Parts: sequence; C-alpha cells; structure tokens
Amino acid sequence: MDFFEHGGRIGKNIRYDFSANINPLGLPEGVSEALRESLCQAVRYPEAESLSLREAIAGEWGTDAGGVVCTNGASELIYAAVRALRPAAGLLLSPTFSEYERAFLSVGCPVRYYPLKRENGFAVDEDFLDFLEKQETGSLLFLCNPNNPTGSCVEPSLMERILRLTARRGLWLAVDEAFLAFSGEYGRRSMRRYYKEYENLLVLNAFTKLYAMPGLRLGYGVCESREVIRRLMLQLPAWNVSVPAQAAGLEALKEKVYAEKTVVYVAEEREFLVAGLKKASGLIRRIYPPMANYIFLEALPGLDRLLEDRGIAVRSCENYRQLRAGDYRIAVRSRRENEALLQAIYEEEAAWQKI
Amino acid sequence: MDFFEHGGRIGKNIRYDFSANINPLGLPEGVSEALRESLCQAVRYPEAESLSLREAIAGEWGTDAGGVVCTNGASELIYAAVRALRPAAGLLLSPTFSEYERAFLSVGCPVRYYPLKRENGFAVDEDFLDFLEKQETGSLLFLCNPNNPTGSCVEPSLMERILRLTARRGLWLAVDEAFLAFSGEYGRRSMRRYYKEYENLLVLNAFTKLYAMPGLRLGYGVCESREVIRRLMLQLPAWNVSVPAQAAGLEALKEKVYAEKTVVYVAEEREFLVAGLKKASGLIRRIYPPMANYIFLEALPGLDRLLEDRGIAVRSCENYRQLRAGDYRIAVRSRRENEALLQAIYEEEAAWQKI
Repeated sequence: MDFFEHGGRIGKNIRYDFSANINPLGLPEGVSEALRESLCQAVRYPEAESLSLREAIAGEWGTDAGGVVCTNGASELIYAAVRALRPAAGLLLSPTFSEYERAFLSVGCPVRYYPLKRENGFAVDEDFLDFLEKQETGSLLFLCNPNNPTGSCVEPSLMERILRLTARRGLWLAVDEAFLAFSGEYGRRSMRRYYKEYENLLVLNAFTKLYAMPGLRLGYGVCESREVIRRLMLQLPAWNVSVPAQAAGLEALKEKVYAEKTVVYVAEEREFLVAGLKKASGLIRRIYPPMANYIFLEALPGLDRLLEDRGIAVRSCENYRQLRAGDYRIAVRSRRENEALLQAIYEEEAAWQKI
Repeated sequence: MDFFEHGGRIGKNIRYDFSANINPLGLPEGVSEALRESLCQAVRYPEAESLSLREAIAGEWGTDAGGVVCTNGASELIYAAVRALRPAAGLLLSPTFSEYERAFLSVGCPVRYYPLKRENGFAVDEDFLDFLEKQETGSLLFLCNPNNPTGSCVEPSLMERILRLTARRGLWLAVDEAFLAFSGEYGRRSMRRYYKEYENLLVLNAFTKLYAMPGLRLGYGVCESREVIRRLMLQLPAWNVSVPAQAAGLEALKEKVYAEKTVVYVAEEREFLVAGLKKASGLIRRIYPPMANYIFLEALPGLDRLLEDRGIAVRSCENYRQLRAGDYRIAVRSRRENEALLQAIYEEEAAWQKI
C-alpha cells in the first residue's frame, strides 16, 4: 500500500466495507430526493462560488457568506489552504490524515511532525505546546479533531491553550472537524465557539462523512478573516463545486433529525462493536478509546487479509507515519454489518487458536 | 461585471440562455440514465484517480492511463498545469478565456500577452511565432483552439509551426480543445495527431460543453510525458472527480452518434443564426466567422440589457482584455431558441430605428 493510499478502495468481492468512515445510516432520504431533482440542472453551470450554499452554512455559524468557502471535498480545501496561506512550514501530528502532508509536499513546503506517543494512546498532550512554541511564525498546523485514524480528540482545555498559543505566535491553525459530529460532543468540542475571536483559525468540515455522500465531494471552511477566505477562493478554479453537490449540501443542512439519529446510532453501534471486539483478545491486543465513527486497534498483522478473504474490508494503517503492521481502523457500520464482522473475527480467532 | 466573471450566471427571469456555450441537444439519454444509476453510489468514495475513466479516454487516444489525467472540470486542470509545470512565465492570447490568467496569478506567475488584432478578426497570425521566439524557456502557453470568446481556430499549418517552435524553444504548450468537437473539423485540427511526438504538449479537453454537463464538472488532459501526468496528479486532491462525473464520462465516451448529430445540428443552426443576425445590420455591425458553437459579434452597446428585459441572456465580452462594450458572444442553441433570439433582435432594431 502506497504511503498516500486511502481506505475505501475495495475490490469487487468485498461485501462489507469497514475501510471508509461513512455514516452507516446512508444518504438521508431528503438528500437523495434533492439529488435526483438536481440532475436535470446538470446542463447548467453550477452556481458561481456556491453562494447560496455558503449563505446557508454561514447562517448556521452566525456569520455571512464572506466567512465561508465551499470546496470539492474537504481535500480541495486542504490544498487551497496550503497555497493561499503560503506557510513557512507545515506542522502535523504523526500519525494523521495523509492528505495534509501530500498538500504541503505539492508546494515544496517543509513539514515538521509532532510524534504522538503510542503509550499515551496517540493523544495530543501538553508537550505539544512546547513543540508549537518552537515553530516559525507563519507556519500552518493541521489539527484533525478527532484525529484520523487514531480516533482521539484534543481535550477542550488543551485546545484552548493551543488556540491562544498559535494566535500569539502567529501560527495558522486549521482544525479539521470532519468527524466531530459523530462524537456526540460537537457543541462542547467544536471550534465554532471560538472562530470569531481568532483570525488565525480556519475550521474545516465535510459533508462527506456525516451525510454519507463521499461520492459527491463537498467540504467547507469557515474563517473570521475575510481576507483569508478571499485568498482561499483565489486558489480555487471557477465552478469547483458541482450542481449535485451544491443541491445535496443545501438539503443536508436541513437534516437535523438525521444528524441527531446518527449520533445515537453510532454511539450504540460503537459500544456494541467495542464490546464484541474485546471478546477476541486472542487476535486483538488493544482497542483505543474511539470518539468518532471508527475504531483504531492493534491486532494480529495480516488480519485484514484474513477478513478480505471473507469479503470484509478493514483499513490497514501500516502506511501511516509511526504506525505498523497490525494497526487497523474499522468503521462503525450497521448492526447487521457489525455482527458479520464480529462473527468473522471470532471464526478467525478460533482457527488461529487451533494452529 | 468583474474581470474574471463568466457567462451562464443568469437571473430567474431569463427564459433563453445564450450566454453559456453548451450543446443545445442537451444531456444524451444514455448519460442521463448512467447519472441516475450513479446516485446510489454516492455513498462510496469515487474511484481513486479516476482509473477506469482514464483508461477509457486513453483507449480513444491510443495511449494508456498513464498518459491521461481527469479533473474536476477543465478549469481544475488549468490550475494544476500552472502548479505542476512551474512556468517561468505564462503566455496568453489576448483576448482569451480568463481562467488561464487567473491560474497564473494564483501562483504569482508573470503573464505575457499576445494582442490579437481586431482588424484580423482576432485570428492568430504569423507574428505570433516572433512573439513566441522571444519568450523565456520554460514558459507555458495556453492556446484555446477555437479561441473563446472570438471563435476562430489557428490554421493547421500555423499550428504545426507553433508546435515545432515551442518544442525547440523549450516552451510548454497547452492546447485547450474544449470547443473543437463542435467545429466539425476535429480530425483535421486536433492535436491528437501530434501529441505522441511532442512531450512539451498537453492537450486539454472537457466533457462539459459537448455533452452538455457543465454542472457535473469533468475535464481531462493528455500528454505523452508520463512525468508531466505524474506531476499534474501530485497537484490534485484525492478523489477530485465525483462519482456522478466519472459515471457520466464513461457513458459519454460511448455516445458517438450523439457527437455526430451535434456537429450537423450545430452547423445548421450556426448558419441559420448567422444569416438571421446579418439581417439586423442596424444593431449588429460585424459578425466574426464562427468555428464552434458560439458566435462573436460587434453590436450596439447595451444590446445585452435590451435582450435581458426580454428574458434572453447573451454574454457581454466587455470584461475580456482588449474587448469593449458592444462585443458579444452568443451561443448556438436550438432552432426554437434561435428564432426567439432573432425575433427579439428584430423587434429591438425596429424600435431603435424609430428613435
């Protein structure tokens, strides 16, 4: 597996995909409907600069469209941020989502890594403040919260200190909250509370995961600095968000009940899955406390290939910095799928113990 | 109108849109069908690096997927080219499609303009070779053929000399053929015949215009140099082409009859429209020979606003370099729409002559 390869690349013989972290409830019905209706608009150019959608997002955030940018998936925003802010250096957790690093490398920007400690459960700790203190002014930190693939969140009190430190030291802080809504603690943990005070803060989010629409590509960023949003938009091609993505996004914002149901459903299934995985202690050595809709764990190296033979895909995390064979990320899926996964693991464990 | 603003931004009271150059036959039925079917795949990530689609395009071009890149509209490819090739300078016709300039500016690349002469019908002439001869090695020329908005093609013999000159001088040549299929002379004029011999040549194309799917965003580039394609892909975010766009593209490539019908239909309607516009010599001063699915003309400044009051949008070209109030671009549409446009122009002319 290539360093920059992602989950969700599944072969034809896969029946259950636990390798991509997508809402197990699937596309909300209202969004499906909006999508079907949007197809007859495919013969027109998308609304320029996604203005209606930016206004709708701005409404949720208590700002105006000038503080919001919409992109072709959050990944396009990551690249645009690196190009628009022209950071002195890129600052990254290690391990974390690999597109940040790929974006820095695409502009030849040097990258400094903060190694998360396995013995700490890969949590961001107070030493991180010392690391940030030493960085060059104008550097850009991508902070994935909860982190992908390890699943832990930065503690709110520590996050506040990171915010203040980056503002004081003139560092850009991009907090990626693509998975935060699954935590059930969005209100307590989101940077939404802070963004008006910190002009060095860019909050990234995606419709991809929560609304189960990764195929449509829709992300967005919020920043109090109009100048930053303007600079980001200069890096984006015209019509960067398609007609179906804009239509789906506008509809998804109305799906409040779906979002609430998701939190409850994912919490239940996450608990079910963790409890079930714990029973397979012959194959699974350690389960890290999950905050989002995926579970990071240490297991028998090669478990992914055993499961693949049974039509089940999980994400081997071997190609992340600092991670190794036997580190896996498993999405929380529906009860039926989760049962199928546990059943397969139990059978593998029984077979393994016979050897 | 802002310098970088495009056509196709039409208000709610517009019944006929001649401001965006989209195939008047609309989305092919097979593509519509593929789109509808693709929606249930929106819950999955798009195929990474659009591999199947690149293979299909490569098949048409007699190359392999390593020589093709797919993008979120051709506009994303324009930006990727500027970033990947890191040109010493940007070389542009003036006037031409404004996204090229916007892309160069996004990386702070200086731009040199070759001013096309109105008295020459804005055609690329032999003096252009002298201009190119003087440019710095490593510069990147975007050549829109036929040019947007003026509608003229570079003569094939001159194009061959441009090709040889750019190769000899170490200039990058990006030929944008987004509208070439409408000319009916694709075989004679496309760079497809040459690309295997010239590693400095990148051919750009789009599904947007020919298959009437601008809302879905799908463009592609072909280059014989695997290294160039690899560098382009490093500038593109993961999953840059959506599930619906990939599905539509794969189906569109099969629509040979539709493409042939389009050429015949557009040629007929273009002739009908030019003949009709010539009769309005009180309002329309000059019609430039059109090669694609749009007509560039000089008319009474303010004609766009008179037509807008009648529910008809045309593209004022005032915001292009070297162009001025009274320069318009009009798309070739269906007979019914074209008749409505001509009728409106005749009525305006009659009203104008009474004053």
